[in-house]
Amino acid sequence: MEFLAAAIAVGLGALGAGIGNGMIVSKTVESIARQPEARNILQTTMFIGVGIVEVIPLAATVIAFLIMFT
Amino acid sequence: MEFLAAAIAVGLGALGAGIGNGMIVSKTVESIARQPEARNILQTTMFIGVGIVEVIPLAATVIAFLIMFT
Amino acid sequence: MEFLAAAIAVGLGALGAGIGNGMIVSKTVESIARQPEARNILQTTMFIGVGIVEVIPLAATVIAFLIMFT
Amino acid sequence: MEFLAAAIAVGLGALGAGIGNGMIVSKTVESIARQPEARNILQTTMFIGVGIVEVIPLAATVIAFLIMFT
Amino acid sequence: MEFLAAAIAVGLGALGAGIGNGMIVSKTVESIARQPEARNILQTTMFIGVGIVEVIPLAATVIAFLIMFT
Amino acid sequence: MEFLAAAIAVGLGALGAGIGNGMIVSKTVESIARQPEARNILQTTMFIGVGIVEVIPLAATVIAFLIMFT
Amino acid sequence: MEFLAAAIAVGLGALGAGIGNGMIVSKTVESIARQPEARNILQTTMFIGVGIVEVIPLAATVIAFLIMFT
Amino acid sequence: MEFLAAAIAVGLGALGAGIGNGMIVSKTVESIARQPEARNILQTTMFIGVGIVEVIPLAATVIAFLIMFT
Amino acid sequence: MEFLAAAIAVGLGALGAGIGNGMIVSKTVESIARQPEARNILQTTMFIGVGIVEVIPLAATVIAFLIMFT
Amino acid sequence: MEFLAAAIAVGLGALGAGIGNGMIVSKTVESIARQPEARNILQTTMFIGVGIVEVIPLAATVIAFLIMFT
Amino acid sequence: MEFLAAAIAVGLGALGAGIGNGMIVSKTVESIARQPEARNILQTTMFIGVGIVEVIPLAATVIAFLIMFT
Amino acid sequence: MEFLAAAIAVGLGALGAGIGNGMIVSKTVESIARQPEARNILQTTMFIGVGIVEVIPLAATVIAFLIMFT
Amino acid sequence: MEFLAAAIAVGLGALGAGIGNGMIVSKTVESIARQPEARNILQTTMFIGVGIVEVIPLAATVIAFLIMFT
Amino acid sequence: MEFLAAAIAVGLGALGAGIGNGMIVSKTVESIARQPEARNILQTTMFIGVGIVEVIPLAATVIAFLIMFT
Repeated sequence: MEFLAAAIAVGLGALGAGIGNGMIVSKTVESIARQPEARNILQTTMFIGVGIVEVIPLAATVIAFLIMFT
Repeated sequence: MEFLAAAIAVGLGALGAGIGNGMIVSKTVESIARQPEARNILQTTMFIGVGIVEVIPLAATVIAFLIMFT
Repeated sequence: MEFLAAAIAVGLGALGAGIGNGMIVSKTVESIARQPEARNILQTTMFIGVGIVEVIPLAATVIAFLIMFT
Repeated sequence: MEFLAAAIAVGLGALGAGIGNGMIVSKTVESIARQPEARNILQTTMFIGVGIVEVIPLAATVIAFLIMFT
Repeated sequence: MEFLAAAIAVGLGALGAGIGNGMIVSKTVESIARQPEARNILQTTMFIGVGIVEVIPLAATVIAFLIMFT
Repeated sequence: MEFLAAAIAVGLGALGAGIGNGMIVSKTVESIARQPEARNILQTTMFIGVGIVEVIPLAATVIAFLIMFT
Repeated sequence: MEFLAAAIAVGLGALGAGIGNGMIVSKTVESIARQPEARNILQTTMFIGVGIVEVIPLAATVIAFLIMFT
Repeated sequence: MEFLAAAIAVGLGALGAGIGNGMIVSKTVESIARQPEARNILQTTMFIGVGIVEVIPLAATVIAFLIMFT
Repeated sequence: MEFLAAAIAVGLGALGAGIGNGMIVSKTVESIARQPEARNILQTTMFIGVGIVEVIPLAATVIAFLIMFT
Repeated sequence: MEFLAAAIAVGLGALGAGIGNGMIVSKTVESIARQPEARNILQTTMFIGVGIVEVIPLAATVIAFLIMFT
Repeated sequence: MEFLAAAIAVGLGALGAGIGNGMIVSKTVESIARQPEARNILQTTMFIGVGIVEVIPLAATVIAFLIMFT
Repeated sequence: MEFLAAAIAVGLGALGAGIGNGMIVSKTVESIARQPEARNILQTTMFIGVGIVEVIPLAATVIAFLIMFT
Repeated sequence: MEFLAAAIAVGLGALGAGIGNGMIVSKTVESIARQPEARNILQTTMFIGVGIVEVIPLAATVIAFLIMFT
Repeated sequence: MEFLAAAIAVGLGALGAGIGNGMIVSKTVESIARQPEARNILQTTMFIGVGIVEVIPLAATVIAFLIMFT
């Protein structure tokens, strides 16, 4: 049962991170193509965004590792 | 059963945070590209928004850790 | 069974809060970018909105904590 | 089984409140940005709307608390 | 089993009321912003609509209370 | 098992009524805002429509009450 | 098991009737607002349509009553 | 088990008939509003269409009755 | 178990026929309203299409009857 | 168990055939209404398409009959 | 269990083939109606496409037959 | 259990291949209709794309055959 | 149980690869049709993209083979 | 149970990576076709994005391998 729990934790985390980061980065690429001169501020905002999005999936990954080695 | 509960808690939290933050940050990046001079107020609003969105998923993460070490 | 209940409560709450707040804050950011001079009233409306949206997920979080320590 | 019931009640309530209030408040913010001079009547309508939407989820929360302490 | 039944009844009712009222009130807010002089008739129609929508979820809530105290 | 049946009957009925009435009333509000002088015929059509939509969910509610007190 | 069957029959019927009638009546309201002089033929078509849509959900309701009292 | 089978048969049939007829009649109403002079041919086509759509759900209803009284 | 199988066969068949025929006939009605002079060829194509779509659901209905009386 | 297998085979086949043929024939009808002079080549392409789409659902139907009489 | 496996294999294959071929052939019909003089190359591309799409569902059908007669 | 595994492997593979190839080939047909002179490079890109998409479903088919004859 | 695990691994991998590669290649084909002179850089980007997308599904395939022969 | 857990972990990871990278790379290809002179910065942003998206699915793959060989 432990392995199944670890798999669900990291699997749902990967799904959430994929959807969230996919929306953010694809919009950033589209915006840079529209206004190349604003690429610094756009990339900075993107880094902040993906950093915030990754917090919970990373916690899910940590929990999955903890479940496996506890 | 405990590990499965922790996995579901943090997994659904990651999914919710990914969807919510993905919508907010992607709209912010799009808006900054449209009006670069308003980037301060837009980033401030974004930080407030992602902070509010993260409250419940962080609570889900805390609960997941509590489930594992209780 | 208790832990699973707490996980479902806080997980669905996080999902609901993510969807609801994501819609509200992303529209607010888009609206401020369109009319920067109306940012006070827009942010006030946003705060009221996310406050109302957060009521039930917070109750879900409280119930999850109550389930775990009861 | 009681805890699971409380979790489902408050979780579905949070999901419903998140979707409903998210639609209402995001449209209100968009409408105020379009016509800032009509913000009083728009906010009044919004308050009525979120009040009506919150009735059933609040009842769900009350039922969840009743399930837990009965 | 009774508690689970009450939770499902009020939970689905909250979901239905959230979707239905969310559509009605958000359209009303959008319409008032477009034609502020017609706000009386629009609000009257909205009240009739949310009243009709709330009938079945309220019955669901009543049934949930009946299930719990019977 | 009876209580669960009553909950599913009234819950699905509330979901169906919410979706159906939500579509009808929101379109009516939008149409009245576009042509305020035709509000009588529009409201009459709306009343007929919500009346027809409510037939089956009301039957679901009646069945739910019958299940509980039989 | 009988009660659960009745609940599923009338619940799915209510869902189907809600979706079908919601689409028909909302389009009719929109069409009358666009051409108020054609409201007789539009309402006649609407009555035929909702009559046809209601046939199967009514049969579902009848079956649900038959299940309960047989 | 028989009653559950009858409920699923007529319930899925009602769902299918609701979706199919809803699409057909709502398009017909919209088309008549756009070209009122072609209402005979449009209504004829609509009757043929809903007749064809209803064949299988009616068979489902017949099967449901057969299941119950066999 | 036999009755459940018959119900699933005819229920999924009704769902498939409803979706398929709904798309075909609604597009046909819309096309006739746009070009009333081409209504013969359009109706002929529609009849061929719904005939082809109905083949498998009718086979499903036949199988359902066979399951019940075998 | 055999009957359930036959029901699932023919049911999913009917669903697949309904979606696939519905898309093809509805687009064909729309295209003929736009260019009535190209109806021969359009109908030929449609026949090839629905022929290809029907291959697998017909195999599903054949398998369902084989399951029942084996 | 074997029959259920064969039913799932051929059923999912029919669903996949229906969606894939439906998209390809409907776009081809639409494209031929827009440019009738390019119908040779369009039909050739369509044949290649449906051939590729059918590979896996046909393998699914073959596997279903193998499951049944092994 | 082996047969069920083979069915799921090849069924999900067929679904994935149908969706992926359907998107690629339908866009290719649309693009060739828009620019017939670029059909060589478009077809080449299409062949590369469907080749890449088919890799995993073909592996799924191979695994399904291996499951059956091992 | 091993075979079922291998089937799920390679099946979900095929689904993920189909969706991901389908989006990438179809957009590439559309872009080449719009700007044929930029086809080298577009194809290069496409190859990088599908290479990255295929990493995890290939790992899923490898794991499926490992599950079967371990 | 271990193999099933590994399959779910790597399967959900592949699904998440496919959706996320598919959105990012397809938008990048579209943007390069619109502004070929900005392809360096767009590709750089794309590499950062897919790198971030791949973190969690790669962790899922690692966890899947760990589950299998532990």
